[in-house]
Amino acid sequence: MTDLAAVKAALKTQAVETPSWAYGNSGTRFKVFAQQGVPRTPREKLQDAAQVHAFTGVAPTVALHIPWDKVDDYAALAKYAEERGVKLGAINSNTFQDDDYRLGSICHPDAAVRRKAVDHLLECVDIMDATGSADLKLWFADGTNYPGQDDIRARQDRLAEGLAEVYERLGDGQRMLLEYKLFEPAFYTTDVPDWGTAYAHCLKLGPKAQVVVDTGHHAPGTNIEFIVATLLREGKLGAFDFNSRFYADDDLMVGAADPFQLFRIMYEVVRGGGFTADVAFMLDQCHNIEAKIPAIIRSVMNVQEATAKALLVDRAALAGAQASGDVLGANAVLMDAYNTDVRPLLREVREEMGLDADPPAAYARSGWAEKIVAERVGGQQAGWGA
Amino acid sequence: MTDLAAVKAALKTQAVETPSWAYGNSGTRFKVFAQQGVPRTPREKLQDAAQVHAFTGVAPTVALHIPWDKVDDYAALAKYAEERGVKLGAINSNTFQDDDYRLGSICHPDAAVRRKAVDHLLECVDIMDATGSADLKLWFADGTNYPGQDDIRARQDRLAEGLAEVYERLGDGQRMLLEYKLFEPAFYTTDVPDWGTAYAHCLKLGPKAQVVVDTGHHAPGTNIEFIVATLLREGKLGAFDFNSRFYADDDLMVGAADPFQLFRIMYEVVRGGGFTADVAFMLDQCHNIEAKIPAIIRSVMNVQEATAKALLVDRAALAGAQASGDVLGANAVLMDAYNTDVRPLLREVREEMGLDADPPAAYARSGWAEKIVAERVGGQQAGWGA
Amino acid sequence: MTDLAAVKAALKTQAVETPSWAYGNSGTRFKVFAQQGVPRTPREKLQDAAQVHAFTGVAPTVALHIPWDKVDDYAALAKYAEERGVKLGAINSNTFQDDDYRLGSICHPDAAVRRKAVDHLLECVDIMDATGSADLKLWFADGTNYPGQDDIRARQDRLAEGLAEVYERLGDGQRMLLEYKLFEPAFYTTDVPDWGTAYAHCLKLGPKAQVVVDTGHHAPGTNIEFIVATLLREGKLGAFDFNSRFYADDDLMVGAADPFQLFRIMYEVVRGGGFTADVAFMLDQCHNIEAKIPAIIRSVMNVQEATAKALLVDRAALAGAQASGDVLGANAVLMDAYNTDVRPLLREVREEMGLDADPPAAYARSGWAEKIVAERVGGQQAGWGA
Amino acid sequence: MTDLAAVKAALKTQAVETPSWAYGNSGTRFKVFAQQGVPRTPREKLQDAAQVHAFTGVAPTVALHIPWDKVDDYAALAKYAEERGVKLGAINSNTFQDDDYRLGSICHPDAAVRRKAVDHLLECVDIMDATGSADLKLWFADGTNYPGQDDIRARQDRLAEGLAEVYERLGDGQRMLLEYKLFEPAFYTTDVPDWGTAYAHCLKLGPKAQVVVDTGHHAPGTNIEFIVATLLREGKLGAFDFNSRFYADDDLMVGAADPFQLFRIMYEVVRGGGFTADVAFMLDQCHNIEAKIPAIIRSVMNVQEATAKALLVDRAALAGAQASGDVLGANAVLMDAYNTDVRPLLREVREEMGLDADPPAAYARSGWAEKIVAERVGGQQAGWGA
Repeated sequence: MTDLAAVKAALKTQAVETPSWAYGNSGTRFKVFAQQGVPRTPREKLQDAAQVHAFTGVAPTVALHIPWDKVDDYAALAKYAEERGVKLGAINSNTFQDDDYRLGSICHPDAAVRRKAVDHLLECVDIMDATGSADLKLWFADGTNYPGQDDIRARQDRLAEGLAEVYERLGDGQRMLLEYKLFEPAFYTTDVPDWGTAYAHCLKLGPKAQVVVDTGHHAPGTNIEFIVATLLREGKLGAFDFNSRFYADDDLMVGAADPFQLFRIMYEVVRGGGFTADVAFMLDQCHNIEAKIPAIIRSVMNVQEATAKALLVDRAALAGAQASGDVLGANAVLMDAYNTDVRPLLREVREEMGLDADPPAAYARSGWAEKIVAERVGGQQAGWGA
Repeated sequence: MTDLAAVKAALKTQAVETPSWAYGNSGTRFKVFAQQGVPRTPREKLQDAAQVHAFTGVAPTVALHIPWDKVDDYAALAKYAEERGVKLGAINSNTFQDDDYRLGSICHPDAAVRRKAVDHLLECVDIMDATGSADLKLWFADGTNYPGQDDIRARQDRLAEGLAEVYERLGDGQRMLLEYKLFEPAFYTTDVPDWGTAYAHCLKLGPKAQVVVDTGHHAPGTNIEFIVATLLREGKLGAFDFNSRFYADDDLMVGAADPFQLFRIMYEVVRGGGFTADVAFMLDQCHNIEAKIPAIIRSVMNVQEATAKALLVDRAALAGAQASGDVLGANAVLMDAYNTDVRPLLREVREEMGLDADPPAAYARSGWAEKIVAERVGGQQAGWGA
Repeated sequence: MTDLAAVKAALKTQAVETPSWAYGNSGTRFKVFAQQGVPRTPREKLQDAAQVHAFTGVAPTVALHIPWDKVDDYAALAKYAEERGVKLGAINSNTFQDDDYRLGSICHPDAAVRRKAVDHLLECVDIMDATGSADLKLWFADGTNYPGQDDIRARQDRLAEGLAEVYERLGDGQRMLLEYKLFEPAFYTTDVPDWGTAYAHCLKLGPKAQVVVDTGHHAPGTNIEFIVATLLREGKLGAFDFNSRFYADDDLMVGAADPFQLFRIMYEVVRGGGFTADVAFMLDQCHNIEAKIPAIIRSVMNVQEATAKALLVDRAALAGAQASGDVLGANAVLMDAYNTDVRPLLREVREEMGLDADPPAAYARSGWAEKIVAERVGGQQAGWGA
Repeated sequence: MTDLAAVKAALKTQAVETPSWAYGNSGTRFKVFAQQGVPRTPREKLQDAAQVHAFTGVAPTVALHIPWDKVDDYAALAKYAEERGVKLGAINSNTFQDDDYRLGSICHPDAAVRRKAVDHLLECVDIMDATGSADLKLWFADGTNYPGQDDIRARQDRLAEGLAEVYERLGDGQRMLLEYKLFEPAFYTTDVPDWGTAYAHCLKLGPKAQVVVDTGHHAPGTNIEFIVATLLREGKLGAFDFNSRFYADDDLMVGAADPFQLFRIMYEVVRGGGFTADVAFMLDQCHNIEAKIPAIIRSVMNVQEATAKALLVDRAALAGAQASGDVLGANAVLMDAYNTDVRPLLREVREEMGLDADPPAAYARSGWAEKIVAERVGGQQAGWGA
C-alpha cells in the first residue's frame, strides 16, 4: 500500500539539473547539425534552462561547463539566473579540447600538461566560490588508443596525484564528483573506465569525493542499478548524469532507449535513500537532431515518470515476497508499479504546483521557440567547441 | 607443407587501397587534433599516398571521397596520381554532411532530399567515368535516433528504390559496393545495419552490387570471418574497409586491437578464393592522435603480416585434422601459422621487390615528414568536413 | 485514433504456442533445480499446457520436441490434447544430445553423422504427418569451439545439402522454420549465427522455408525489431521464439528484461502485417527457479500486453509526424501507446471471452498446482535430457 | 635490450595451477559429452595433473573442488599427490549444486541457507588446514534472475556478513580469494558482478582477502589488463582463473580466442610486479569437446608463450617512447615482443629443465592416453556434479 500523498510530495521536491551545453549545438564526429534559435551566450543558455524549469517545475539548477560558459563576472551570471528563476549548479571542467591534451590531461606523460590541467581544475573551484556552486564535476577524456602507448599504472599514479591537489583546494560544502566512462574519446584504455576505479580514487581522497554514474558509460550487459545500489550502500554515490543509449554513449533523451532500466535505477535510488539524500540528478544529453528545449522538457518528464513509478512500488509487499522466496510474486510487485500509467498522477502534481499539466504543449503555446529563432540571429551559436 | 615461393609471389601482388581522407585531420566528436603537414588539397593527399606506396610497394591505389576530393578536372587528377606512381581507386559518396541530411539521405521521408542524395550518387558515377574508377562505395549515415522517429520498413523501400536507380546508371566494369554499419551516427536504427541487409539489397540489384565488410561495423561478439566466408560462398564479397576497434567503430590501425582476428579473416579470404578474386582491400581509418603517414604504412604492413600468416597455413594438414575430428590438431595447424614470425619473410619480399626491408625506418629517413611540415603552411587543412 | 473494438477483436484471436519442454525441468550447466509436480510424460505436459490455455484463452497449441516427446501413437497424443482443449503445434527437432553430435550434426565432417541427423529430421516430418503439425522448427547446435577446428565454408555446404533433402520431403501446407543463434553451445562459430545466414538458406530452399527469430539469440546492441521488419518485408518471417535476456540466451520470461523492446517488436509485427499473417508466436523459455505454469501464464500475458500497446499506436498520427520530420512528435505517439496501462483493457477482453480477468490468481485458486504435486510422485521427471 | 638469461630463468620458475575438475567431464546446459579415460576419483585426477606437470614442468599444483574432491583423508591425498610430483593447491568451494541454493547461498534470503553455506566455507578452511593449502577460492553463483526477485542491497549486507565470518577463521598464511562474474548462472544480478564489488569487500575484510580475475567473467569491451594493473597497484590481485572466451564465459583454452589480450594481461602482470609476487596463476577451463590432458598441456604452453613475450618487451625502449609521446613508437615496441616467435626460446627452456621440447608430442608418445582409456573402465566418471 503506497501513500499517494507522500508520493506526490516527493515528486514536488524533485530536482533535475539541466546542463548548459545541452541547449547548444551538438553532433557526432560526422556532422553537427546547427539549429535555429540556439543560444549564443551563457545568459541565453540560462534563458532556455529557465523555460524548462518554468514548465516542469523540477529543473531549478543549471550546470555550467568551463570554458564554454566562461564569463568575466560569475556573480552577475548567478544573479542573472536567479532573476529568471533558476540557480547555477555544478561546475564541469574541460580538459579535452585544447591541443595540449592530445595524449591526456591530468594523466599526460608530460608534467607541464598535467600542471595545466590541474590549474584548470583549481580555476574551476575558484569559479565555484564565485557562483556558489557546491559540486565540481570531473570527467576526463584521458586514455590511450593503442596498447603500449602509455603506462597504464603510471597514469593512475598521475591521476591520483592531480586529484589530491584539487581535493585539497575544496572548501566547506564543496564536493568533487568523479565520472567514469568505458570508452570514447580514448579507445584502448580510459583512465577512469568503471565505477570501481572511480570508487577507489574517491575512497582515498576522502568524504568530499564521490562517484558520478553516467547512465551511458557502461559496457553492454552491465547492471547499472546494481552499481547504484552498491554506491549508495558505500555512501559514495554523488550524482547521476542521465541520458540513454542503445549501443555506446549515444546521449539520447533519458528513458528513451530503455525506460524499464531507468525505473529500476530510480527504484534503487529510492530504496537506498538516494532520493532524499545528497545525490545530484543531472541530465547530460545531446539533442543532435531533435528540438533542444522540448527534448529537455521530455527528458525531465521521463525522469519524473520513472521516479513516480519507483515511489509507487509497494515495498512492504515486495519485502514479503522476497523474504518468502516468491520469485514471481516479487517480480509482479515491481512490475505492477512499472506498468502503472503515472501520467495522470503527474498531471495532478503539476496542477497542484500551479503548472500546466502538459509541459510540452504549454511550451509549444508559449511562443518561446519562435521568439528565439527570430531574435537570436547572427553571432556564434554555442556548441561543444565554444 | 606450404610453398614459400608461391607465398612470396602472392604477397608481391597484394594491393591495399588507402583512403585519401586518412591523410587529413580526423577526430572524435570531442576534438579534432590538427597535425602539422597535413594535406590541404586532393593532390597533396595523393602525394602522401604515393609515399605509402613507394615504401610498401603494395598500396597502388587511392580512394577518393566526394565532395572532399572534388576537383574541376578528374582526368588531370588521375594523371597527377599516375605521375607519382599511384592510381585513383574507389569513389566514396558522402550523403551525411549537408544540413538537408539531418534525418537521412536516400531513406529520408522527404522525396526532395532523396532526390538530392540520388543525384549525388549519380554524380559520383560520372566522376568514376572521368577517373576510370571501377567501384562506387556507398556508406549511408541514414537511420533514426528514437523509436517511432520514422517507419523502418518504408525506409527500406526508399533505400531499394534509390539504389536501383543508381545501379541502372553503372557502366560496364563498374560496381556498387554497399557497406553496412551497426550504429553511428544514427543510434536507434541504421538503414543498413548488418551484412544480411546489405546482402538482401545487393541480391535484388544484381551482380554489379556487392557487399563491403568494414571490420569495425559489427556488434560485440560477431564472428567477422564467418561473414567473410559466407559472402565469398555467395559471390557477394566486394571489398573490405580495414581498421580495428576495441569497443565501437574506433577506426584504429588495422590489426592493432586484435591481430588474431585479422589473421582469421585473411585466412577465410585465402581459403574462399577472395585473395585472387575481385575483392578490394581498402583501409578506412582515423589517425586521430598518431602521425598519419607512418600509421598508414604500419597498417599496410599489418595487413601484409596477417596475409602472410594466412598463406602459410598448411591447408592439407588442416584439412586432414578437420576431417578426422581432431579439434586440438586442427587448431594447432592454424596456430602454428599464426605464431610464426613472418617479418623476416616480408623483409625478403620487400628486398626482392627492390624496396627497403623496413618501410617505417626508410620513410623516417626520407625527410618527407619534415618537408611537408615545412612546405604545407597556411591554407585549409583537409579533414572530414573539407 | 485507434479503434478499441478492433483492438479487442485482434487480441481475442491472438495465439501463443507454448513449448512442451518449458513444463519440464531445466537449468544451467551448473545445476538443474528439480521442481515438484513437474510432468513425467508428454501427456502430463499437455495437461499443464491446457491449464495455461484454459486461463489465458490465447495459448491453444503446444510445440513438441523430438525425441523428448516421442510416443508410439502420435494420433492418440493429438486426440489427448484436443480432449483437453489444445492442439499439437510445431515439431522441434533435436540434433544435439546424442554422443555422435559432439562435433555437429547436419554440418558434421563425417557423412555418417550427417546422415543420422538428416534421418532424424525426416522422421520429424513423418511425425508432423501423424500429428497434423504444419511447422518443422529447426535449431542446430552445430558449430565449432576453436579457430581451425573445422572448415567454416564446407560446413555451409553440408548444411545446404542437408536442408535441401529435408525441404524436399515437406508436404503441402508444411513449412520448415530455420532458427539462428549467435553462440551456445558452440562458442567460436555457430553454423547459423544470424538472420542473414538463415535468410540466405531459406531463400535458396524456397517458399516453404522461413526464418525463426528467437529474441535471445542476438549480439548485444542488435536491433531485433529491424530484423523483424526486414523479414516481414521479404516475406520470410516464419515464427518467433519469445523469451528475454539480459546478457546471453538467458531464456527468461518474455518481456521480463526489456518490455519496451518487446513492444517495439510487436509494433513492427503489427505494422508489417505479421500479426494477421502466417507468423507463429511461440515461447521458448526456461523457468529454472520460478514456478513453471505461473511463469508461462505470465509470459503469455506479457505478450498480450505488448501486443495491446502495439495495436493502440495511433498510426495515422505517427505517420503524420514521421512524414513531417517531427522527431519528438513521432516518438511521443509511440511512447503514448507504450505508456498506456493496458491491463484494464485486457481484463475486459478476458471477461468478454468468458475468462477470469486475472489469470494468475485464477490459476492459483484452481488447485492445479497442489494437485500435480500430490499426484505426480515417482517416475522420471521431464527435462531437457528426457 | 632484454636479458635473455633472466627471461629464461623467470620462465623456469613459472607455476600454473591446474584444476582437478578440468580433468573430468564438462559440458553446456545442452549436453555433457563424456570422454573415455576420464578420472573417476580425486586420485585419478591427480594422476592426470601429474602428467601435465611432468611434460610442461610448470604445473606443480592442483586445485581441489569441494565437495567434488571430498575424501576421508586429505593428508593421504596430499601425500599421494606429492608422490606423483605435484602438490595440492587452492581449495574451491561449491555453494551452487545443492537444492537449497536455488535462490542463492551466502546471500540467500533465508538465514538457514546462509548458515549452511557459511558452514561449508568454514569446512573448506578445515580442509585447507589438512591439505596445507594456502588459498580459499570463493566463487558464488548467487544472484537473481528477475528484477524485484530479491533486494540487491540486502544481499550485499548478507554477503559481507558471511565473508567476515569466514575471514575470521583464516589461519596464518591463508588467504581468501574472491572471484567476480558478470552473469551466469544468475541472469539479472550476480552478487559479485565486477572487480569493484570484489575489491570493496576485500578492502573491508583485510589483507588476507584478495580478488580473483577470471578472464572470462567480464562484459564485452572490458579492458582486463587495466583491471589487472589497477588491482596490482592496490595490492589486491590474488589470483587468475585463466581461460578464454569469444562471447560469454566460454571457458575455452586460455589464449585460444585472443592471444594478444593474454599477452597484454601478462605484460601488466610483469610490469606490476605480479609475476614475482604472490599472485596465483590458475586455469579454470572446460574441455567439452577436445581431449582434456592435451588441452591442458596446450593451455599451460599458451600461458608460457604469452609470458615469454611479455618478458621480452624492451621496457626501457617502451618507457622512452611513452615519455616522449611517440604513440606509434611505443606501440611498436610492444608489438615487436608480441610478434616474436617465442616457441624456439621455450623449447630451449624446456630442454634446459630436462624436459622434452615438445610437450604435446611427448605426451602423445607416452601412452598415457591409451593407458587410462584401457584402465579406467566402469565406475562413475568425474564431472561437475560429482
